[in-house]
Amino acid sequence: MSRIMARRRVTRITLGSPRAVREDVLAVEEPLEIRVGGRPLAITMRTPGHDVELAAGFLVSEGVVARADELVSARHCASVTEENTYNVLDVTLASHVPPPDASLERAFYTTSSCGVCGKASIDAVRTRSRFDVERDDLVVDADRLVGFPDALRSAQAVFEKTGGLHAAALFDGRSGRMLVLREDVGRHNAVDKVVGWALTQGLLPLTGVVLMVSGRASFELTQKASMAGIPVLAAVSAPSSLAIELATELGITVVGFLRGESMVVYSRPDRISEQPASTAATGSATAMAGAS
Amino acid sequence: MSRIMARRRVTRITLGSPRAVREDVLAVEEPLEIRVGGRPLAITMRTPGHDVELAAGFLVSEGVVARADELVSARHCASVTEENTYNVLDVTLASHVPPPDASLERAFYTTSSCGVCGKASIDAVRTRSRFDVERDDLVVDADRLVGFPDALRSAQAVFEKTGGLHAAALFDGRSGRMLVLREDVGRHNAVDKVVGWALTQGLLPLTGVVLMVSGRASFELTQKASMAGIPVLAAVSAPSSLAIELATELGITVVGFLRGESMVVYSRPDRISEQPASTAATGSATAMAGAS
Repeated sequence: MSRIMARRRVTRITLGSPRAVREDVLAVEEPLEIRVGGRPLAITMRTPGHDVELAAGFLVSEGVVARADELVSARHCASVTEENTYNVLDVTLASHVPPPDASLERAFYTTSSCGVCGKASIDAVRTRSRFDVERDDLVVDADRLVGFPDALRSAQAVFEKTGGLHAAALFDGRSGRMLVLREDVGRHNAVDKVVGWALTQGLLPLTGVVLMVSGRASFELTQKASMAGIPVLAAVSAPSSLAIELATELGITVVGFLRGESMVVYSRPDRISEQPASTAATGSATAMAGAS
Repeated sequence: MSRIMARRRVTRITLGSPRAVREDVLAVEEPLEIRVGGRPLAITMRTPGHDVELAAGFLVSEGVVARADELVSARHCASVTEENTYNVLDVTLASHVPPPDASLERAFYTTSSCGVCGKASIDAVRTRSRFDVERDDLVVDADRLVGFPDALRSAQAVFEKTGGLHAAALFDGRSGRMLVLREDVGRHNAVDKVVGWALTQGLLPLTGVVLMVSGRASFELTQKASMAGIPVLAAVSAPSSLAIELATELGITVVGFLRGESMVVYSRPDRISEQPASTAATGSATAMAGAS
């Protein structure tokens, strides 16, 4: 497997069919720390590959360089103590190029060692939640879940006119009732807005709640779900590898490709039930699936 | 017009039809500076509205607050000297809540005044390019341009398997040849990668080049085009209001909704010609359009 794609076991659920466990391929997302002259400048969540170009382009975008000869070299740091994950890149500028303004530094964290291993690099970019979603006993009926994308879209007033806004919504996982929806040009902002709404309503942690987003599920969105105590993150499109790694570790259910009457469950599939809501009390989802 | 949507005059071009100038509605994108206790903490490019929720949710995501009573108040700063654009929000935490770690500060810039007017706030988040794209005399044939999305998609090896990657590509605007394509879980990374490739090839400024992206055109992508000296930014989806404001100011052509045989041109439509490439020398695009 390349570093661009990662294989995961996923559960495909289609209404009226037995659930199918199979291997699926995810786009890899990993942090890259960009250093200039040994100084950490920024961390970006990226798909590995073409890291030197990424760092070079980042420095062009930030106005640090604009010509090839202003960049002398760029190399991945070698780790002395841990497995090298190639997630730290150190760029050397030509001596006549002024180093980036200190105000540019996205000083999320500073490490003293040069190598950042896979586990450590994830730890470096994550925040710790006060809430434990692992034991949230929410079970969502699949036939309720498949209705969320339509509910999201019909509540998206502005998208219809501009085609330019992402949406995030909170749903009560048991009743299926939409609690709040917010739109924004940025996916992360839309999620921050619904979480902020919940905070001001005194609703945190959001136990029993599904966070539904209009786009993809990234590491950062999984993290936002965790910080708000949300047990289920559902997305219309694909999740990244790191979103699923974090979700698996924290016990968050991630549902992707939620379209039509089907979905792919990437973590904690036990929270999704194929039983009709009306008969949910009469048997287990596994038995239902096995009988179809 | 609300602050969520903005009207702009756009040019709609469909192959075989006269170009149509009409009013269109864009999703508004503006910077919000979030302060805590008067100290600038972060700037986010957002759609105005629900700013208090956005700030509250941001603070939840960053692990600063998790309960309603940890947030005492949040108010937009009032400007003394300029028109108040409601783009600075100051949050007051309860006295028992530790203030955010200084390492959290995305110290893009610091202002001494509390009010940031529309113009000033854009200036605050933008970087200055060494390249002037305003006078780039590239003219792209519309019938060439409509082929770019398919070229992008067929070159996107990983997307086909994961559905999870954004793509950015550089095309020679005159020959239509794809120069490079890169994919990433992040749109901005994909663009940084193609710009970084161009830098290392000694190709900056990218005069006569079209930057094509798989998603939307944001302020930040327009800025990246400017920094690399790219005259035309084309997107499959919608641009934001601020992307177009910046593009108009810098003389960058922004094309959105590039799908099938049509597109919407939001700025500098003079760079798009409806004439077939073979007869481009025999008359003006305007005359052609008028004759249809």
